[in-house]
Amino acid sequence: MDFSQVDTLVKALDVLATFVFALVGARVAADRGLDYGGITFIAAVASTTGGTLRNVALGIRPNWISNPWILGSIVLAVFITIVLRTTKPIGKFLLLMDTFGLAVAAISGAQIALFYKAPWYGAIVLGVITAIAGGLLRDLLCQVEPVVLHRETLATSSLIGASIFVLLEQTTLNHNWTALSGGIAVMAVRGISIYFDLHLPKLNKKN
Amino acid sequence: MDFSQVDTLVKALDVLATFVFALVGARVAADRGLDYGGITFIAAVASTTGGTLRNVALGIRPNWISNPWILGSIVLAVFITIVLRTTKPIGKFLLLMDTFGLAVAAISGAQIALFYKAPWYGAIVLGVITAIAGGLLRDLLCQVEPVVLHRETLATSSLIGASIFVLLEQTTLNHNWTALSGGIAVMAVRGISIYFDLHLPKLNKKN
Amino acid sequence: MDFSQVDTLVKALDVLATFVFALVGARVAADRGLDYGGITFIAAVASTTGGTLRNVALGIRPNWISNPWILGSIVLAVFITIVLRTTKPIGKFLLLMDTFGLAVAAISGAQIALFYKAPWYGAIVLGVITAIAGGLLRDLLCQVEPVVLHRETLATSSLIGASIFVLLEQTTLNHNWTALSGGIAVMAVRGISIYFDLHLPKLNKKN
Repeated sequence: MDFSQVDTLVKALDVLATFVFALVGARVAADRGLDYGGITFIAAVASTTGGTLRNVALGIRPNWISNPWILGSIVLAVFITIVLRTTKPIGKFLLLMDTFGLAVAAISGAQIALFYKAPWYGAIVLGVITAIAGGLLRDLLCQVEPVVLHRETLATSSLIGASIFVLLEQTTLNHNWTALSGGIAVMAVRGISIYFDLHLPKLNKKN
Repeated sequence: MDFSQVDTLVKALDVLATFVFALVGARVAADRGLDYGGITFIAAVASTTGGTLRNVALGIRPNWISNPWILGSIVLAVFITIVLRTTKPIGKFLLLMDTFGLAVAAISGAQIALFYKAPWYGAIVLGVITAIAGGLLRDLLCQVEPVVLHRETLATSSLIGASIFVLLEQTTLNHNWTALSGGIAVMAVRGISIYFDLHLPKLNKKN
Repeated sequence: MDFSQVDTLVKALDVLATFVFALVGARVAADRGLDYGGITFIAAVASTTGGTLRNVALGIRPNWISNPWILGSIVLAVFITIVLRTTKPIGKFLLLMDTFGLAVAAISGAQIALFYKAPWYGAIVLGVITAIAGGLLRDLLCQVEPVVLHRETLATSSLIGASIFVLLEQTTLNHNWTALSGGIAVMAVRGISIYFDLHLPKLNKKN
């Protein structure tokens, strides 16, 4: 079984999520004062790590080995970042893009996992990994505090969205509707949590 | 060849080591002031990274994709951590648990590697990786100094235990005895090194 | 398809690059004040991560599982580091060694990827990953600023060298000449960039 059997829409969404994550990654790297090489590197890592872990866990090759669109979308994202030369930190537009990428990655990740015969709980976990692993490694490499662990409900929103998608996939609902429902759930949970500054509780109040 | 062919005891021990590492991971994350989401995430990473690397290196899927007990034991460990609400740093009981997990992971890791036709030296290395990789990534993500590199003889004790196990497996000794011997060796070396505050020597005295 | 089908020269070069990266890794770890265990661990990680990621991405087992020379060369490098007891930071000789290792890893990485049917762009990326991933993880674990992101043109030189090699492989040129050309390109670009203190430009001048 080969990645080429996954349907075209899912592949296109995978490329789209890659592009968006590469844009955000390039921005974070530029903010950290990295040079063009570092920016390209961080953009590549941020945009491909999640999908790579998903594919390797499923026993298939990472997409960037044989899909030229993945590399192309990273190059384009870096090019745009360098040409625009904005020096502002991540703004509202990029945050929106990032949220959109998160939704696409969570759902397409879970979908690909189901396609490769992962059980429902495995598919949910792989959806979450696809959505958050790249941003986590980006923050680690840039030596900034990982966003996923501290400030935002990235993991929670992708977990809820991927769960809704996988759950609805067990019904007779049309596949496009289940994917759309899951994706909207990701964006809604993240949007609400950012807007109202909601967080999960902590164990130690002192921190 | 599939992970389902590994015998039941080894699988049960794998789940047990996962549970123990998740408990310790959740504790470390809570000490760092992470929220419930971060605690769950660190518990999952700390408890599954070693076995995941082992399986991927051997060319088989990580256990958590298709074994619901792995995810279940992580959820249970996080639940216990949150319900108990202890805010003390890792105590003697957890250190004992961690040492037990280290022994189980080192031996079951080497055993699974042998089962999948790794040569003796590959099995020893995979035993060590299974035992220490999760704790290392946990410390990196929590941005605390990695325990494995600095304070304790985690790697040394799992190396010695896994080596004894793999060596004895070449003999006609009963399999349960070889596994027990290796596991006791891990716990003995770590226990002795903690009790007497033993360390490997350093190269640069100035540090 | 198995790694044993890769030709002997490429395998020998793989071991050579491992040895060189292990020497540099052991030196960096000793400078950071790690004990013998930490030095061995960092030497192993620094020297095997690149090739491991390459193999896993290609769907084959990491070399260290079944090639005893890989582990042997790491043990030798650690032994030399400990016996020599030099406490100086990385000198000219090690920098030269490291550059040589970079060239060997970039070209052998791309070559192995081509052998396992990766397309040209995938082979270039895998050559770069083989060359730089170990040093990056080494720096992350030692908690020093990653060299690849900040100071030197490691990624650029391995990208240029791997690209030249993969390009020339499409011609009828003798294989040894294409490999040599790529390797010399890596060393030339890195040497020139270090000698003249060249860097890629940054986006934000303030940093």
